[in-house]
Amino acid sequence: MKPDNTAPQPLTIVSLSASYRSRTLTPAQVVDTIATRTAGDDPHRVWIHALTRDEMMRYVDALEGKDPHALPLYGIPFAIKDNIDLAGVPTTAGCPAYAYTPEKSAAVVERLIAAGAIPVGKTNLDQFATGLSGQRSPHGACRNALDPRYASGGSSSGSAVAVALGLAAFSLGTDTAGSGRVPAAFHGLIGLKPTKGVLSTLGVVPACKSLDCVSIFAHTARDAQQVFDVARGIADGDPYARAWTPAQRGGADAPTLRGVRFGVPRAVQLEFFGDTSYARAFDAAQARLRDAGAQLVEIDFEPFLDAARLLYEGPFVAERLAAIRPFFEQHPDALHPVIRTIIGGAAKWSAADLFAAQDRLAELRMRAEAVWQHIDAILMPTSATTATVDELEADPIRVNSRFGYYTNFVNLLDLSALAVPAGVCSTGAHSGLPFGVTFVGRAHQDAALLQFAYAWLGEAVEPQTHAGAQAVSSNESIRVAVVGAHLRGEPLNGQLTERGARLIEATATAPVYRLYALSAAASGGVAKPGLVRVPADGAPIALEVWEMPIAAYGSFVAQVPAPLGIGTLTLADGSAVQGFLCETSALDGAADITSFGGWRAYRASLAAR
Amino acid sequence: MKPDNTAPQPLTIVSLSASYRSRTLTPAQVVDTIATRTAGDDPHRVWIHALTRDEMMRYVDALEGKDPHALPLYGIPFAIKDNIDLAGVPTTAGCPAYAYTPEKSAAVVERLIAAGAIPVGKTNLDQFATGLSGQRSPHGACRNALDPRYASGGSSSGSAVAVALGLAAFSLGTDTAGSGRVPAAFHGLIGLKPTKGVLSTLGVVPACKSLDCVSIFAHTARDAQQVFDVARGIADGDPYARAWTPAQRGGADAPTLRGVRFGVPRAVQLEFFGDTSYARAFDAAQARLRDAGAQLVEIDFEPFLDAARLLYEGPFVAERLAAIRPFFEQHPDALHPVIRTIIGGAAKWSAADLFAAQDRLAELRMRAEAVWQHIDAILMPTSATTATVDELEADPIRVNSRFGYYTNFVNLLDLSALAVPAGVCSTGAHSGLPFGVTFVGRAHQDAALLQFAYAWLGEAVEPQTHAGAQAVSSNESIRVAVVGAHLRGEPLNGQLTERGARLIEATATAPVYRLYALSAAASGGVAKPGLVRVPADGAPIALEVWEMPIAAYGSFVAQVPAPLGIGTLTLADGSAVQGFLCETSALDGAADITSFGGWRAYRASLAAR
Repeated sequence: MKPDNTAPQPLTIVSLSASYRSRTLTPAQVVDTIATRTAGDDPHRVWIHALTRDEMMRYVDALEGKDPHALPLYGIPFAIKDNIDLAGVPTTAGCPAYAYTPEKSAAVVERLIAAGAIPVGKTNLDQFATGLSGQRSPHGACRNALDPRYASGGSSSGSAVAVALGLAAFSLGTDTAGSGRVPAAFHGLIGLKPTKGVLSTLGVVPACKSLDCVSIFAHTARDAQQVFDVARGIADGDPYARAWTPAQRGGADAPTLRGVRFGVPRAVQLEFFGDTSYARAFDAAQARLRDAGAQLVEIDFEPFLDAARLLYEGPFVAERLAAIRPFFEQHPDALHPVIRTIIGGAAKWSAADLFAAQDRLAELRMRAEAVWQHIDAILMPTSATTATVDELEADPIRVNSRFGYYTNFVNLLDLSALAVPAGVCSTGAHSGLPFGVTFVGRAHQDAALLQFAYAWLGEAVEPQTHAGAQAVSSNESIRVAVVGAHLRGEPLNGQLTERGARLIEATATAPVYRLYALSAAASGGVAKPGLVRVPADGAPIALEVWEMPIAAYGSFVAQVPAPLGIGTLTLADGSAVQGFLCETSALDGAADITSFGGWRAYRASLAAR
Repeated sequence: MKPDNTAPQPLTIVSLSASYRSRTLTPAQVVDTIATRTAGDDPHRVWIHALTRDEMMRYVDALEGKDPHALPLYGIPFAIKDNIDLAGVPTTAGCPAYAYTPEKSAAVVERLIAAGAIPVGKTNLDQFATGLSGQRSPHGACRNALDPRYASGGSSSGSAVAVALGLAAFSLGTDTAGSGRVPAAFHGLIGLKPTKGVLSTLGVVPACKSLDCVSIFAHTARDAQQVFDVARGIADGDPYARAWTPAQRGGADAPTLRGVRFGVPRAVQLEFFGDTSYARAFDAAQARLRDAGAQLVEIDFEPFLDAARLLYEGPFVAERLAAIRPFFEQHPDALHPVIRTIIGGAAKWSAADLFAAQDRLAELRMRAEAVWQHIDAILMPTSATTATVDELEADPIRVNSRFGYYTNFVNLLDLSALAVPAGVCSTGAHSGLPFGVTFVGRAHQDAALLQFAYAWLGEAVEPQTHAGAQAVSSNESIRVAVVGAHLRGEPLNGQLTERGARLIEATATAPVYRLYALSAAASGGVAKPGLVRVPADGAPIALEVWEMPIAAYGSFVAQVPAPLGIGTLTLADGSAVQGFLCETSALDGAADITSFGGWRAYRASLAAR
């Protein structure tokens, strides 16, 4: 790596770690590089407080004698949004009059430093993390790293710009209504907005305490995951802490988008505010997912949009007032005028208004929940459009709000989100600027979203990031016959392979079964067949027999959803084997596809139509 | 049972069911008795609307041809607090101007009626369920069934009095801050305030939507559990619905208090407002628990008391205003003066005040959580004292608030609670009046609290009501429902126990299954039933849920022979669990034994022949 502040190279955790481990680079050299890069003007207004070389070297010194293999973030430089505490450095939240100097770092920062990471500075933000633009700061509008005429996005502006400029390998932002995603989209970065409560907000200046999340910017999904894995953990005394209970996804052995069901808002519910560049880029992203074998499923986006409206048009804004009320009441003039207008407007709402809005939100959450029966994730543009710094200055609230069309509701509805780059716009006014999409999942789906990102970005994944095969303690094995979505190449085949199952033979049942294509309602959205024994009127049905360790079989059976079950099948040769059966009560509305002789032949006939 | 309104006998579910099943009593006879008992003056002010004999007989007629063994609440009369909808009867919430006549019954009422229960009337309450006294009603102060000079307790006043007077075997109340517990204490009854969201509040007039619970009054823990088991279930369209995930307790095979750790507030944190009768009675209750082998552990009650203060001294009262705001604003004069004062006082709180209070509550919840590391349940007096109707009329708000000292915080902190009788006061001014204590547990601990009550009350418990399971980490274990030869005591039960499986609960399916006795040919010699889902024509079928290590589950499934298989069963409470199903192709020659309600009942009928 050359110290070079004219054309900074991106820093990544993976490449830095490899260099440290091969002893071709030292943390002190990296700190030198960054000190050189940050020296000077800061034309992008990245920093509120950049650490000096000496300040950084104290963290380097603490790594003395440590093994680069033993610390997951050994020598990795990172930037910190200036509403997150770093011991001994002022926290301002973008409001100099509010500043205080914490003795202790925020809980997440402590975890990162303990894992070997090196803080490089506190970054510029929309004051009190209120905004998506990056302009609402007394330290100057944060400029886009790729084209300084454009907005950086916010409120975690400087954190995104620092990574984009190669001043840090990753950075921490916060995200209440999109602040960790919009700046990622504007810079072609990964922006991980994890499940609420999983990264501690202890030592973070609150925006909306019940919604705030610490977020992660990085160049690659792999880097984001590594930071996420280190930063997680329940901090003592954090009332909003939640244990992370990663949801299992029947996935493939390697990350894939094949068979993954992405919900996409109906065309009339998509909004780009006239930005044809973004509209076309989103079309292209959908086509790319389809080409990768994903299914795009239209969903009703209305409850999500209604929740977003509640956030900014209702009493929820009062949580921002509650967070800084004594300061706000004593120093109204210390606030940026736009922030003062927004937060000051909250005083008009009553407690009864808020209860009514919270009740309405409970109802919207219930309605939004329904989509997850049919999809694995939601695919959305991260921002609906972009804007120049001048456009934002001319109309600061309205233009800002456009950036949040697809982000505002996520924390209100307790969802996880991962903003990922999706190339650059190829047409229209914003041609050449980056475009980003966001994968949204239910709470605790963070790992699944990262898996999608690996496949989406074509990132090579090392074995330790796989959800690999379960440990098995027994040599005994069991044979199970599959007839539909578990067949080789079909979407749920990974449920077999991840358990170490191997294909024994492709054969057929005895001629005593009928096969049905289950209705979407009965099958939970994935196309699935149902096999039923009908001795008097049956036919042979194609199947595959797989064999897996019996200790892994229980967990396989455990995830078989109604109306399917595991029973005993009679094979063509008269032998019996465990296999999939279907409750007959689910056959209402199911098509009898026995005449195709099997699920693959039936599916091929559909594709041929 | 003699129709006798001078000395009504208590009605219990267990005794009524036994009489119905032995054909020594009919529901029509019970309805006659109740119609006779409720005819006349209603000096206790129990009813807002008592059903006439004819109205009740419509429910009796619907039981025509039904089997008393098949319906868990066949012919059981129950009373309904008048803020819970019963189709065709006005719901008033104790405010005649607010009244409306619902077309549909509340979700819980529907479930009870579907299980055979017979509604007998809508009961008096503190208006809009705001109060703990039973005095705040335009229908007159509800009088204590045991001594009419005394308060009944509220707000579920009439529901408790109806059960105490033998006008119903059980009743439904609601409980936001103690309304389902205080009246139980004043009448020597069981008052079950289940985990929030587990009994649907769909069709209930809201008090505080995010806190309201439907509660159950009964004479015995067994009766309360039977109602709870039937009433549970997720209702479509209920935003506050939560699946019940019963917490496991490493416990004994039979209910016991031995070794159970009860947290008791420090002596200085106990408060009886000078009531020496109650103070002595609580001492006696503690001594009795100690004698039964329980451990009493002092806990810091401060976070609980702080949460209680938040509820009544802070902006949380605004949720009551939000619930009826248009009505309140248009008809302020229609409200009881005390209720108008309380709810009207909510208008002064701002949304920012409420966010601050909710944040403070999150912190208190975290602090309160800490106690559960050391205890299995909290033991408290249910009420701190009692009072006469005259005392309450003289000082309605202050005396009322004393009843809630030990109840207010429970729903705010998302806890489960069971009020149980603890004898009568033996000294002081309230000598001879009943005293009650409450067992409080974490959310989803309802079943454990009922277990303590069995032991506390010395109730005989049938095996199927045990929950004698050891704690098992849920991600390493799997639950499977068995309906036939694997039931406890049946020939194949060893296949479960040899794999370390433990019985979790005895319950029933949702009423969407039919049960068949398989022919000897189909069942391979061992007598076995086959369970088939038949939504249009099903019934609840008794079963046992067992839990086993998931690594052992595969080998269990592997030995299930045709025509049986493992699929997904829907339980009575709406939850899903893996369990035994049967291929319909095997039902030729099988006897339909659905009307027996389960395999054991069917087998018993064979033995009796």
